[in-house]
Amino acid sequence: MIVHLKPTIGQQQAEYLAAQTQSIVLLQEGGPVVLITPSALKTLPAVLEPHTEAFFSMDSDIQLASNQYVGERIVKVGNVLLGKDQGNTLMIGGPCSVESWEQISASAQLMVSLGITTLRAGCYKPRTSPYSFQGLGYEGLLMLAKIREEYGLHIITEVKDSSHVHEVIALADIVQIGAKAMYDHSILRACGKSNKPVLLKRGFGSNLQEFVQAAEFILSGGNAQVMLCERGIRTFEQKTRFTLDLCGVAYLREYTNLPIVLDPSHAMGYRYGVSSLARACVAMGVEGLLVETHPNPQVAMSDASQQLNHPQFTEMFHSLKPIAAAVGRTLV
Amino acid sequence: MIVHLKPTIGQQQAEYLAAQTQSIVLLQEGGPVVLITPSALKTLPAVLEPHTEAFFSMDSDIQLASNQYVGERIVKVGNVLLGKDQGNTLMIGGPCSVESWEQISASAQLMVSLGITTLRAGCYKPRTSPYSFQGLGYEGLLMLAKIREEYGLHIITEVKDSSHVHEVIALADIVQIGAKAMYDHSILRACGKSNKPVLLKRGFGSNLQEFVQAAEFILSGGNAQVMLCERGIRTFEQKTRFTLDLCGVAYLREYTNLPIVLDPSHAMGYRYGVSSLARACVAMGVEGLLVETHPNPQVAMSDASQQLNHPQFTEMFHSLKPIAAAVGRTLV
Amino acid sequence: MIVHLKPTIGQQQAEYLAAQTQSIVLLQEGGPVVLITPSALKTLPAVLEPHTEAFFSMDSDIQLASNQYVGERIVKVGNVLLGKDQGNTLMIGGPCSVESWEQISASAQLMVSLGITTLRAGCYKPRTSPYSFQGLGYEGLLMLAKIREEYGLHIITEVKDSSHVHEVIALADIVQIGAKAMYDHSILRACGKSNKPVLLKRGFGSNLQEFVQAAEFILSGGNAQVMLCERGIRTFEQKTRFTLDLCGVAYLREYTNLPIVLDPSHAMGYRYGVSSLARACVAMGVEGLLVETHPNPQVAMSDASQQLNHPQFTEMFHSLKPIAAAVGRTLV
Amino acid sequence: MIVHLKPTIGQQQAEYLAAQTQSIVLLQEGGPVVLITPSALKTLPAVLEPHTEAFFSMDSDIQLASNQYVGERIVKVGNVLLGKDQGNTLMIGGPCSVESWEQISASAQLMVSLGITTLRAGCYKPRTSPYSFQGLGYEGLLMLAKIREEYGLHIITEVKDSSHVHEVIALADIVQIGAKAMYDHSILRACGKSNKPVLLKRGFGSNLQEFVQAAEFILSGGNAQVMLCERGIRTFEQKTRFTLDLCGVAYLREYTNLPIVLDPSHAMGYRYGVSSLARACVAMGVEGLLVETHPNPQVAMSDASQQLNHPQFTEMFHSLKPIAAAVGRTLV
Repeated sequence: MIVHLKPTIGQQQAEYLAAQTQSIVLLQEGGPVVLITPSALKTLPAVLEPHTEAFFSMDSDIQLASNQYVGERIVKVGNVLLGKDQGNTLMIGGPCSVESWEQISASAQLMVSLGITTLRAGCYKPRTSPYSFQGLGYEGLLMLAKIREEYGLHIITEVKDSSHVHEVIALADIVQIGAKAMYDHSILRACGKSNKPVLLKRGFGSNLQEFVQAAEFILSGGNAQVMLCERGIRTFEQKTRFTLDLCGVAYLREYTNLPIVLDPSHAMGYRYGVSSLARACVAMGVEGLLVETHPNPQVAMSDASQQLNHPQFTEMFHSLKPIAAAVGRTLV
Repeated sequence: MIVHLKPTIGQQQAEYLAAQTQSIVLLQEGGPVVLITPSALKTLPAVLEPHTEAFFSMDSDIQLASNQYVGERIVKVGNVLLGKDQGNTLMIGGPCSVESWEQISASAQLMVSLGITTLRAGCYKPRTSPYSFQGLGYEGLLMLAKIREEYGLHIITEVKDSSHVHEVIALADIVQIGAKAMYDHSILRACGKSNKPVLLKRGFGSNLQEFVQAAEFILSGGNAQVMLCERGIRTFEQKTRFTLDLCGVAYLREYTNLPIVLDPSHAMGYRYGVSSLARACVAMGVEGLLVETHPNPQVAMSDASQQLNHPQFTEMFHSLKPIAAAVGRTLV
Repeated sequence: MIVHLKPTIGQQQAEYLAAQTQSIVLLQEGGPVVLITPSALKTLPAVLEPHTEAFFSMDSDIQLASNQYVGERIVKVGNVLLGKDQGNTLMIGGPCSVESWEQISASAQLMVSLGITTLRAGCYKPRTSPYSFQGLGYEGLLMLAKIREEYGLHIITEVKDSSHVHEVIALADIVQIGAKAMYDHSILRACGKSNKPVLLKRGFGSNLQEFVQAAEFILSGGNAQVMLCERGIRTFEQKTRFTLDLCGVAYLREYTNLPIVLDPSHAMGYRYGVSSLARACVAMGVEGLLVETHPNPQVAMSDASQQLNHPQFTEMFHSLKPIAAAVGRTLV
Repeated sequence: MIVHLKPTIGQQQAEYLAAQTQSIVLLQEGGPVVLITPSALKTLPAVLEPHTEAFFSMDSDIQLASNQYVGERIVKVGNVLLGKDQGNTLMIGGPCSVESWEQISASAQLMVSLGITTLRAGCYKPRTSPYSFQGLGYEGLLMLAKIREEYGLHIITEVKDSSHVHEVIALADIVQIGAKAMYDHSILRACGKSNKPVLLKRGFGSNLQEFVQAAEFILSGGNAQVMLCERGIRTFEQKTRFTLDLCGVAYLREYTNLPIVLDPSHAMGYRYGVSSLARACVAMGVEGLLVETHPNPQVAMSDASQQLNHPQFTEMFHSLKPIAAAVGRTLV
């Protein structure tokens, strides 16, 4: 249950009421003070009654992200508004990992040449083996900061565990929470306290309920700028790396209020399918698309098999525009 | 291994050579006599050498369906050619089940009014419970035959087990093999001996290798008119009925030569997501799309939750055209 | 809803009442005439009231198999009673396929030497590729009949599609419905009309509800001798062939009344794990265990990697006895 | 590749050689200095040749955990040795969460009364919803430390993210890494540097390769005391909470050298199936069993449906002993 307290209730009294009702206090600039109880509570507790302006009884612990509560949440990246009724689809491109200044600046130049404003690249890599390339870490982050300065691009990069969450929040324009970190409360809570847009990737073994509940950790911490990123789930089918769950995307669109971004590269795992999947993603009418591209995929230090080369990326990008138009959207 | 025998080899000698090499004989009108051995065989057996014109060593038992063997197979529905380079995407609409003459003729009228030429409807329903509606059976088939006569539509209907496979082959224009029947050798072999186009649905627990191998049963029986239909696989995510596997579609396109048809209705299981998924399907650049629609879904005797009503279907249909155009296809 | 009609109601009147209530009539020798309606019906229809002796409203279409209706169903194999309170665990051994008289009689001799009374072997093989060994078919069935005569063993063999279901019912002591045929209504209905015990294997992509509903097709056809066989489901984990679902076995035991048989061979797919899994299966306290063994697994024409050789089978078999004893059961 | 350097090589030179070969240095007390390269490297680099005593080329990045390298690793809990040839199966019991002093001391008393030496209970709970009980945190840890003092029990408790990993390492006898934290490099590395036994739970969406690779992060950090805990994977079957993967356990036993612990409680999710699954687990011949029990499950603040009450736990525990004996093991 989401409870809007009366404007006369201050933070201290809100905390007191929260403690009495096993609730969380949500403080929002310019908005009402809100208590959130477990959704199992269906009737307003007597202790809250005199202090309540409005309340919303919810079906499940998808509460702040539910479109029963708010129809559309808007995330702002630079001047671009992302939200289901805003008509924009954000194109995000770039390599899996920052590998060198030459590599990442070549990627940045491609984005600039195509009019794409957001560059992705990972510094802290959540590799499953300790014996493979683990990313450049903080050194990579500094390169990305310099890229932003030189090329005027927005930077999105991943946090993989909480040891470096504050560095990423400080330096990125969009903080990406990786699929393997989706349940990490330390990361989720740190992002909840920041004011940076967050791209939350779905864990490949996580169902939609858990996925949106992870977003609730951020939202209930006070940061409303959360985007949900579907990037493929793990299924019995293993000719492809993962299975992109577009049925799940339809569900998220129907029941939640958060912008949706799709990542066909990780879902597919192989270059050959990425472009046609990217077209399908745009046809779904979502707010963002994230596609990996590398100046020379053959020598990439991670995800070599799935990154498009620059000509492939360019061709794919141009093919997306008429599809975006067909669903009433502009690729930005 | 696929072995093209010399033109001088007759059927009898082919059978003799097949018996000596654990092969299957494929007789094709106008084509070479072909032997197919298990793909594990990598070198041409000495006994075949003098009689062989050409041979093709294959990676797996995806052999006749492999685009290493033939780049594109074409299925003909009426005057329409379906194949990856033919530029056509066949729209197939209609209800889950034939329920009554009124219902099925209303469906037929909708198709005619939209210029759609192919009507789907089930007569033999593969229900999981013995206590629910099992379909009208042969009576339904006769209604469909009459619909064809009155409305000039092509009819696609499902065979669920081999007890009625011959009736369906006799009466349908396209024989649909249901997902639960994908492994049924009796059905596959009967279809292999017929000359009707076959729409083979992927079992929801079947991987891509098994799916195409099921098609090999039909192809190796002598019927080259097989379409592969992805209709959702079963995964841990159960907010939606199944998970539409578009990554798998990219794989099928890359490695096989068969036309591909997509069924977003069964994958989604809920009306609300079908239209956006249908747009994604068309954006994948496939040869066909199958969407369920019912004059009055609320009273449908099966799949009530996923069938579009006629206005929804109409709106969806019109939204598909610019997307088809964007990927170089015409919706037929 | 299961409705017991009054003893005065004859078959004809029962059929009339069934037609009025969309029910199925279950005729049982020596038992009441029973109507079964869809489980969605929760209150007794007025038309049935005067003719009803007792009725059972059910949660789902697991009705005749539910232990809310009958606590324990007993299957009789020879003189052995199989049921959850009967204390017997039936050992079933033998090769994947009948390959030759020598091979199958060697298998039979092993069973006899160990005091095992039931031999398994397949004649109609549901292979996923048309280019691999498809089984000896009817010839194999005749060999099995001869084995029964010579060795006094009970024979269990598989029906894979309905083209040979009557032959198998005629010749086998236990009819095995294969995992890929679990949804085949023709097979299920034919078994429902027979009086042979049926071992129904779970489809590897089928959930527990569907599995038991498939049994309902047989039970509602009039054959109460059905055993449920868990043989592994398909999951994302593919280091092993399938994933044996013992949690599901606990569920079946809690909610259904049917004997349960486990098949660790197909679940594992590799010889090395079969024995320890077989011990775990017996520790679950089930009614049967089915393990593949071959006189010379290296040359087996199907399932070569998972069949135990005879010494391995013998060692495994002896290791099961104290575990059976520990859970209050006798291995028969 | 695992490379044993000559005894004359000091740490500094090892680091130098590691840098030249993209290797990790493993320092072990009393053992050789070891370099570990990615397993893709199959031939010894020339630079290492003069300094190498022995090397082991491995199939995959399962290297230190592979039984091709070392046959059996032994973990010591108190005086008990756990390893596949040690004959001990460690019983671990206790509630899901520490809730209060009364609750946790009642649990401790039960363990003591049964002769069980290891108590489990969580303090930092990885809940999927921010609106449910999150655990007592550090306060709970202090209670567990006091329990150890008063009752002489070994304590196992979970770390869910890296913000509290050092507190847990300091206070626990066995550090449990939760399923949702399996990929968390900060936790894995911190455990690698400690000398506490670690129980690593398999992520429910993680395959066996990834699971053992997570253990490699700990092993390659210098801590050889790692136990693998299978606790159920996520599959399409959802009548039970997860699916316990005993086929996977057979795989781990065949290919790795680490002790294995099983957790039937989380796999099943329902009280009714836990005892029979626990018996199956012991019959697998593993090194440990972890079962949740609560003095009053109905009021438990987490996992209420799956915890046994004390009489149920007691009954289950006694039923395990003859099964352990049957597989040559002692329950400790």
